[in-house]
Amino acid sequence: MKSICGVAGVTAAGIKEGKYGLALIKASGNTAAVFTQNKARAPVIDLMAERMKKNQIEGIIANSGCANAYTGRRGMEDAIRMAEIGGEALGIDPMHVGVASTGVIGRYLNLDLIQKQAGTLKLSSSEDAEIQAARAIMTTDLVEKHALVRGNGFSVGGIAKGSGMIAPNMATMLGFVYTDAEVAQDDLKAILSRAVSRSFNRTVVDGDVSTNDCVFLTATGEAGKVPIHEVEKSLTAACIQLAQAIARDGEGATKLIEVIVSGARSEEDAAKVAKTVVTSPLVKTAVYGQDPNWGRVVAAAGYAGVDFEIPDLSLWIGTGEGKTPLVQKGEITADLTAAKAAMKGDTVVFSIDLDSGVGEATAWGCDLTEKYVEINGKYTT
Amino acid sequence: MKSICGVAGVTAAGIKEGKYGLALIKASGNTAAVFTQNKARAPVIDLMAERMKKNQIEGIIANSGCANAYTGRRGMEDAIRMAEIGGEALGIDPMHVGVASTGVIGRYLNLDLIQKQAGTLKLSSSEDAEIQAARAIMTTDLVEKHALVRGNGFSVGGIAKGSGMIAPNMATMLGFVYTDAEVAQDDLKAILSRAVSRSFNRTVVDGDVSTNDCVFLTATGEAGKVPIHEVEKSLTAACIQLAQAIARDGEGATKLIEVIVSGARSEEDAAKVAKTVVTSPLVKTAVYGQDPNWGRVVAAAGYAGVDFEIPDLSLWIGTGEGKTPLVQKGEITADLTAAKAAMKGDTVVFSIDLDSGVGEATAWGCDLTEKYVEINGKYTT
Repeated sequence: MKSICGVAGVTAAGIKEGKYGLALIKASGNTAAVFTQNKARAPVIDLMAERMKKNQIEGIIANSGCANAYTGRRGMEDAIRMAEIGGEALGIDPMHVGVASTGVIGRYLNLDLIQKQAGTLKLSSSEDAEIQAARAIMTTDLVEKHALVRGNGFSVGGIAKGSGMIAPNMATMLGFVYTDAEVAQDDLKAILSRAVSRSFNRTVVDGDVSTNDCVFLTATGEAGKVPIHEVEKSLTAACIQLAQAIARDGEGATKLIEVIVSGARSEEDAAKVAKTVVTSPLVKTAVYGQDPNWGRVVAAAGYAGVDFEIPDLSLWIGTGEGKTPLVQKGEITADLTAAKAAMKGDTVVFSIDLDSGVGEATAWGCDLTEKYVEINGKYTT
Repeated sequence: MKSICGVAGVTAAGIKEGKYGLALIKASGNTAAVFTQNKARAPVIDLMAERMKKNQIEGIIANSGCANAYTGRRGMEDAIRMAEIGGEALGIDPMHVGVASTGVIGRYLNLDLIQKQAGTLKLSSSEDAEIQAARAIMTTDLVEKHALVRGNGFSVGGIAKGSGMIAPNMATMLGFVYTDAEVAQDDLKAILSRAVSRSFNRTVVDGDVSTNDCVFLTATGEAGKVPIHEVEKSLTAACIQLAQAIARDGEGATKLIEVIVSGARSEEDAAKVAKTVVTSPLVKTAVYGQDPNWGRVVAAAGYAGVDFEIPDLSLWIGTGEGKTPLVQKGEITADLTAAKAAMKGDTVVFSIDLDSGVGEATAWGCDLTEKYVEINGKYTT
C-alpha cells in the first residue's frame, strides 16, 4: 500500500475511460480544506467553501480535463449536480461530498460522461484502486503522486495532482489527504493550514495561481486518539512528499530544485527568499543548463523583499559530502568544478544562510526547459 | 537623428572592440537617476546613488559584459577607477561622471581593456555615434534601442539596453535619457520617477530584478525653459518607446504583449493587474503558441492581489477593427477564430476593464519561447 488506502477507513476508485478521468474516494470523518486564493476561483470552490462550514465529508468526486471555472451560474449548478452524482455512486448524502475539478478554464462539464463513469464505480482499498484514483486526476502530470507516512499507531496518506501550487499548468493542484487518527475539527483545520503553508504553498512551477486549487484532509478516526503534534508531524511530512512530487513532475522539468534558507528574521521571511529563488526563471534555466551561475541565486534573494544584509549572506550548493560553498559571508568562494558536479543529478539543492535571525524554511521548484514552453504553447487549440 | 544626439548638447561614442563594449556620452546639466531596488545591488550603483546627491552629471561611461556586481570592496574601487577613466576620456571631473555596468555577476572588471577602449574615443553628435553607443551597451540584446520625441521647441532622446527591467537577462536594464529643455533639479527628479514608473517599471521579460538597473536623465538646458508638463509628456513617451523596445527584444521573444487595464480603483491597482498578466508564464506561452486561451488572462488578473469583482470583468484581444470581445461582464463571448487572428501579428494586445473605478495603466511584456530557455540555460559556462 502506498498512500490513501493504507489509511484505515479509506476506499477509492479511478476511472480513466472517455475524455476525462474521474476519481472517487470514500472516507468519513472530520474534514478540513484549503482553497485557492485566486479571485477568479471556480464555482465548485465557492460551493465547497460554503459546504465545508459543516466540516463533515464522507466522500470525494474529482474530474480532470475540465476545470468548470469561469462558468458562472451554470458552473455552480453543474458542481451541485456533480456532488449528487458522487453521492449516488458512493451511497452518501450529496451535501457531504467533496467535489474538485481540474482542466481547461471557461468550459462546461460533460455531466453525462461523468455520470456514466461514476456508474462503473468499484470502490476498493487495494493498492490498485489508489493508483487508479491518483491517475484519474492527472492532466499533464507524467506520474501519479502518492504519500504514506506511518506514525505511531496511525497513518497519514495522500494523493495529489498538479505541476505546481502557485504554478498549475493545466490549471490546478488537487490534494486528498487522509489520516485514521481521531482529530478534533479545530485541530484538523489548524494542522492542515500549517502543513499546507510548509509544503504545497512552498512549491512553485511557474508562478501562476490556479482557479481550482484545493486540498481536503479527512480524519477517519479509526486508529483512535493520537497526540496532535504527532499527527501534524506526519501530515506535514506527507504533504511535503506530495509537494516535492509535484515540483519534480513540473511541466517539462528534468530536475527538482530545493532551496533551504536559514538565518532569516522569521520563518515567513525565510520562505519568501526560498520561494523567490525557486521562482526565478534565471535560476530555473541555469539549473536546467547545469550552470553554476550562483549570482542569479544571490540576485533573486536580493529582490525577495526581505530584510537582511548582503555581506552577511552565505550560499552552498549540494548536500552531504558534495556540499560546496559558493559564497561565505559575502566573499566569493565558488569552486565552479565542484559546483557543476553538484548540479548533475536529478535534484539540485541550494542552502542560503542570511545570518540575521533564526527563521528557517525550505521551498521546492523545478528547472525551466524548452519542453515547458512546448507544452504550454499548444494547450487548448 | 534617431535619439540622444538629436538633443542639443549631447555627443556620444561607442566602442565594440575587445570582449566588452564601451559607451561614452557627454552632456552637462541637472541630472536625475533611478536605481535598482535589489538589495544585492552592485557597488557601482552604491557609488552612483551617493554621487548623485550632487545632482550634476557631465558624462556617462558604460560597459557591457561584466556587471561588476557582488564584487565587494574591489568592485567599488573598480567603479571609482572607471569614473576616472571616463573623466580622462571626456575631459571632465570624474566626480561628475555617471558609471554603469551590465553583464555577468561575480566577476571583476577588465579595467585595462576599458582604459584602452576609452583611449580610442571620438565623440560625435552624428547618428552613427549614437548607434555605436547604443550597440556598445548591448549584451544579449538583438537590436539597439533608441527613442526621440520632439516637443514644442525641445526634444527628449534616449538609448537603452536590456531585455527587461524586472527581468534582465544578462543582468540589467540601462537607460540614458536626455532633454535640451531647461529643467529645475526637483522637477527633473519628479518627472523621471513618474515616467520610469509608467514605462520601464511596467515592462517584464522574466520577472527577475537586476543588481545593476539604472536610468539617468540629464537636462542640458540648451533649448531653454519649457512648461514642465510638456517635458514630462515627451519624457514619458520616450521612456515608453524604450520600454516597448526592451520588451519586444526580450530574450527569445517573437511577440510584444501589451496589457491595457482600465476601471481599476487606482492607477496602482491597474498597473498590478497589467504587470501580473504580462508576467504569467501561462499567458506568455499561450501568446507564443497563438492560442486564444483567455482563461489564463482572467486567472492571472484574479491572483494580482487587487480588489475587484470577477463578474464585472470584461476582456478584449486586439486593437482597432480587429478588437474582439472575449468576456463581457463575466459572460464568455469569445469568438475564438477572431481571437486567433488577433494573435497572428508581432504585437498582441489584451484590454481588461475591471469596472470598479477609474484607474488605468498599461504594461508590456513578451512571449516565452524555447529560445529563452536556450539562451539562459547556457550563459556563463
